[in-house]
Amino acid sequence: MAAPLRIGLAGLGTVGAGVIRLLEANVDLVARRAGRPIQVAAVSARDRTRARGVDLSAFAWEDDATRLAAREDVDVVVELIGGADGPALTLARATLAAGKPFVTANKAMLAHHGLELARLADDRGAALRFEAAVAGGIPVIKGLREGAAANRLVRVYGILNGTSNYILSRMGAAGLDFAEALREAQAAGFAEADPSFDVDGVDAAHKLSILASLAFGTRPDLSGVQVEGIRHVRLADIREARALGHEIRLIGRAEIDGDRLHQQVTPALVPAAHPLAAITGALNAVVAEGDFVGRLLFVGAGAGAGPTASAVVADLVGIARGEAGPAFSLAADLLAEARPAQPGPARFYLRLDVADRPGVLADVAAVCRDAHVSIESLSQPAAGPEGTTRIVMVTHESPEPAARTAAERLAGLSSTLAPPLLMPLLPLEG
Amino acid sequence: MAAPLRIGLAGLGTVGAGVIRLLEANVDLVARRAGRPIQVAAVSARDRTRARGVDLSAFAWEDDATRLAAREDVDVVVELIGGADGPALTLARATLAAGKPFVTANKAMLAHHGLELARLADDRGAALRFEAAVAGGIPVIKGLREGAAANRLVRVYGILNGTSNYILSRMGAAGLDFAEALREAQAAGFAEADPSFDVDGVDAAHKLSILASLAFGTRPDLSGVQVEGIRHVRLADIREARALGHEIRLIGRAEIDGDRLHQQVTPALVPAAHPLAAITGALNAVVAEGDFVGRLLFVGAGAGAGPTASAVVADLVGIARGEAGPAFSLAADLLAEARPAQPGPARFYLRLDVADRPGVLADVAAVCRDAHVSIESLSQPAAGPEGTTRIVMVTHESPEPAARTAAERLAGLSSTLAPPLLMPLLPLEG
Repeated sequence: MAAPLRIGLAGLGTVGAGVIRLLEANVDLVARRAGRPIQVAAVSARDRTRARGVDLSAFAWEDDATRLAAREDVDVVVELIGGADGPALTLARATLAAGKPFVTANKAMLAHHGLELARLADDRGAALRFEAAVAGGIPVIKGLREGAAANRLVRVYGILNGTSNYILSRMGAAGLDFAEALREAQAAGFAEADPSFDVDGVDAAHKLSILASLAFGTRPDLSGVQVEGIRHVRLADIREARALGHEIRLIGRAEIDGDRLHQQVTPALVPAAHPLAAITGALNAVVAEGDFVGRLLFVGAGAGAGPTASAVVADLVGIARGEAGPAFSLAADLLAEARPAQPGPARFYLRLDVADRPGVLADVAAVCRDAHVSIESLSQPAAGPEGTTRIVMVTHESPEPAARTAAERLAGLSSTLAPPLLMPLLPLEG
Repeated sequence: MAAPLRIGLAGLGTVGAGVIRLLEANVDLVARRAGRPIQVAAVSARDRTRARGVDLSAFAWEDDATRLAAREDVDVVVELIGGADGPALTLARATLAAGKPFVTANKAMLAHHGLELARLADDRGAALRFEAAVAGGIPVIKGLREGAAANRLVRVYGILNGTSNYILSRMGAAGLDFAEALREAQAAGFAEADPSFDVDGVDAAHKLSILASLAFGTRPDLSGVQVEGIRHVRLADIREARALGHEIRLIGRAEIDGDRLHQQVTPALVPAAHPLAAITGALNAVVAEGDFVGRLLFVGAGAGAGPTASAVVADLVGIARGEAGPAFSLAADLLAEARPAQPGPARFYLRLDVADRPGVLADVAAVCRDAHVSIESLSQPAAGPEGTTRIVMVTHESPEPAARTAAERLAGLSSTLAPPLLMPLLPLEG
């Protein structure tokens, strides 16, 4: 058997420890599949003394992660530190500059610095791999970059944040409001103490910008992603959506038309018959639509030590086998610069809390008419607290700017008591 | 850009023409992703004059497909002739023996001769690739071989035959019996004039033996697959299954325990909440369960010119990029020889047509008792034709041999009017 592939591992949190455990548990199997052993040679983390449930005594230790890149006994660096900048970015640059392959699960860094790192990787002929950065254990990066490589992809979308999906499913399944479901998710280890990266859509936006680049051969463009999280989704919205035959999911969605790229993270109404409506709990799911292959769906665990370690080691197996190829499906210099674009027209769900007094509906209808948004259905499902009511509308297909204008003007009505919630309805096909 | 990868294409049916169309339609995109152009250099088919809707004038023609392997202007051969033996196998041997990569969609040939061809490929250092052979456009071969490479896979199963799934879904959706749904599938182009390969489970067995080899690192073993098709599934069974909260699907399922490999194709009752229950029409879906990644699900079009061409060209892009690696996830010499094994215990659905006379139920119950099969529920949903009735049972978890013994003995009862139908119930998890 060939010489081992020797790993420098930076970051020994849950995922880092998971990688060590996996490489121990499946040492023979990984070696057979990779054609050579894959061994940890050196590790680095902030605190050498912390208990992690894995034995580090066989590995060299570096206090400074950057030094892993220069070690002669390290062939490839695995970065599991996290953070868009700081030590992770320093390590990425040092590793690739040294011409060594770099494997990371760091979506924030790729979303912000993916183009720079891909160029550096191309320049030095070093692989940059990040299967674990999107959708955890699901091999969707490989699926898009290689599996769907023959297709012009027109659209990629999915459930990219397991925390938000867990919260939305639990709200619907157990009749919880957002705050209750969030607390439950935190207790179950599915949400951080500060959950804003997850529930405000930032994490999904990072992943979407990476998927869009892979799918369309465009430069990763995080700034072009419209982001809306799930904080304002209420249990009542989930129930209204169900009455309309839909489930609410946090959807990341990217579409390309020529050089115009639409990227959006938003809670959306997904038809019950759509495969994404069936994705519950902390699962992730990605749909890609290609001109020859049609619609592909990938589903699996979006986070957790085991699934993420599985994706990291899959990248290592590929590197051990000598697989090369560009980071984002094309050489970095061929990645196109796309212009951010509005989404195509859609039907919208619009929920409004108003004072329960005569003439309110007439005012609401007039605002929609003036914004050129046509109402498909309107209901006042139940009276709210005393003197208030809730209006739920579904619009006919409308341009998003028109729907937003209507929502903004509705927010300004004197009878409106809280900011309206606007969510697109995902079509069943496409 | 590097020199083009030049293709010799054997077989110009629907899929062959689809490959030519794809390489024309997406010529620039494929070249960018592959790092070099991919061009058809020479083609071969039985009938040179047949109209195929694609222009062949730019390609050299060979009457004898085998000659493609030796042509100096052919770097890689794509085989879309079909058939386990004959010209396809001759071409595979000639191509690999010449040290050239070989791409095929031919599941029958791989199921019968996969080990021989993988050894030849290893010997000559030539790639053997077959993404299109299983589940059409879905990149599930890549997903198992590379995406899940870090995992000990314990189980792989799914809906591997689109024709059967189309028929079963149409039976359920439109209230058709098997013969009606088959005729509809034939009219819609989803079934062949002679449908036996599809509806008798042979095609699914071919694919399952390939998936099992990839998943478990075992030699492809078609002879070890227990095969049962869908001809005996009635509309009444589908309705009974639904009353029990299940959908009937033709499931190919492989599990390994040590060196004991269970492979089975059978109609099965799938719980409504299982992701495979939602797979309708001609779609395919594959579930793989790994020790670190958990459960992965891949869904997409299982057949058709576009999806199959997408998979063929994905293989070509990989070859153009210089990807190597073994055909079945391990070097052929490392593939283990597994012993065929019975499945683990399961609950079973058993449907029986009997003469409607006193004492029949007592006889049935006695047979089950004597076979050590415990009955969880039993119903006589409706009287059949005059003097007959139908008994539907669900057993408690039983070893399959016991359930088969019970079914065989029930078939022998004097009151039994037709062979019983025995189908396992798939568990919701695992």
